[in-house]
Amino acid sequence: MLSKSKAKWIKSLQLKKYRLEEQCFIVQGRKGVAELLKSPFATHLVVGTPQALEALGASTPPLGEWIPCSEKELEQLGSFQSNDSVLAVARMRTFQFVPAPNRFYLALDDIRDPGNLGTIIRTADWFGIDQILASDTTADFYNPKTISATMGSFCRVQIVYGPLEHLLQELKMPVYGALLEGEPIHNVKFDKQGVVVIGNESNGISTPIKKLITHAVHIPGRGRAESLNAAIATGIILDNVFRGR
Amino acid sequence: MLSKSKAKWIKSLQLKKYRLEEQCFIVQGRKGVAELLKSPFATHLVVGTPQALEALGASTPPLGEWIPCSEKELEQLGSFQSNDSVLAVARMRTFQFVPAPNRFYLALDDIRDPGNLGTIIRTADWFGIDQILASDTTADFYNPKTISATMGSFCRVQIVYGPLEHLLQELKMPVYGALLEGEPIHNVKFDKQGVVVIGNESNGISTPIKKLITHAVHIPGRGRAESLNAAIATGIILDNVFRGR
Repeated sequence: MLSKSKAKWIKSLQLKKYRLEEQCFIVQGRKGVAELLKSPFATHLVVGTPQALEALGASTPPLGEWIPCSEKELEQLGSFQSNDSVLAVARMRTFQFVPAPNRFYLALDDIRDPGNLGTIIRTADWFGIDQILASDTTADFYNPKTISATMGSFCRVQIVYGPLEHLLQELKMPVYGALLEGEPIHNVKFDKQGVVVIGNESNGISTPIKKLITHAVHIPGRGRAESLNAAIATGIILDNVFRGR
Repeated sequence: MLSKSKAKWIKSLQLKKYRLEEQCFIVQGRKGVAELLKSPFATHLVVGTPQALEALGASTPPLGEWIPCSEKELEQLGSFQSNDSVLAVARMRTFQFVPAPNRFYLALDDIRDPGNLGTIIRTADWFGIDQILASDTTADFYNPKTISATMGSFCRVQIVYGPLEHLLQELKMPVYGALLEGEPIHNVKFDKQGVVVIGNESNGISTPIKKLITHAVHIPGRGRAESLNAAIATGIILDNVFRGR
């Protein structure tokens, strides 16, 4: 049974302050929890309907504490109306950025929306990018909305937060970024290694980071939208980077 | 001043039922409202902070009723914590699908998330697609979350809802769709006209619609994510469709 105090503790993890204090985060939904149980993250507890727990337990050995509960109790825990019958609490990990030669990375310059961040992580995973640099102002990797939007890719893609300008300067790789005055991306010959900078949803790439871009690229449009969503731009740029490899 | 009854009426438009009854919808934020005022949509009222109203009024002639209010009153009206100082109510329009030769269109097969739908509309606008077909099960174009995510593109892209199978059969154009067994998209020679089908977030393209696909395509990935977000797939496919045109 789910005690009131445990329910309260889980709910507190919606807030970054308590996540940092407890070093724990929430994973919502069957897909995310199934991936969590196979990942290097330590699972602290799993709360779900008896059916959902059974379905998960059949494919993975039980890790942590497993607590059956009703759909209604579950909905009250999550930030979503429906959290797909199961929710887990796992222990945070901290990552170190260890760049390898002949690989591509992303650098997020102040991505604010947790949903965008999660979609960017999922897209990075699709293209085989396993490490992302992010400014300290970027949304929290462990925000439940970020984790949900990754659709399980949070288990495979690591984010390292820090002073982005400094991190990029140390990297010594070509730095690609989408700028209006950039070269049309379809003409760009991408290097075999590099980092792709994705800028803030409203303001794009910040001035100090712009100065570090060695290759400005541009996604040709034909309509009248002022800009593309940051996650969409990420997808299109990465499809062009890995084209023909 | 914003009366209690008007505030209540605006809030009711968060729900589709009341939007349909009133034939009105909400536009949140400066960018969206500024685009609305220049668009063929009839603006019913604009509610905002005195500063936001002045900034909008300076660039456009006042249309409809303009009501100054406080930030706090505004926040209580919208579905977002911050709605960027201004909100408008506009009259719905209904659209007819009038395909032209040598153009591309999107067909949405049960896109459920309003945020995804809005991002797809914004992406379509970027690539110059001005009409979208959508199954009746697709999220509502006039949902405030959809409208917000379009970042103003709701003024330029029209959605026509209906029985998608029937609509596609009538179209007599090449039908492209992302399927796992499709041809790698980088090898595909796209026709000069066509329709791109985007499937449901969880289940992809439905069986009856799959049968109508004349060209199955596949976005090559190198990582371990099971799939791409539907809006990201839309962006990558359209970038490939319009490449070199």
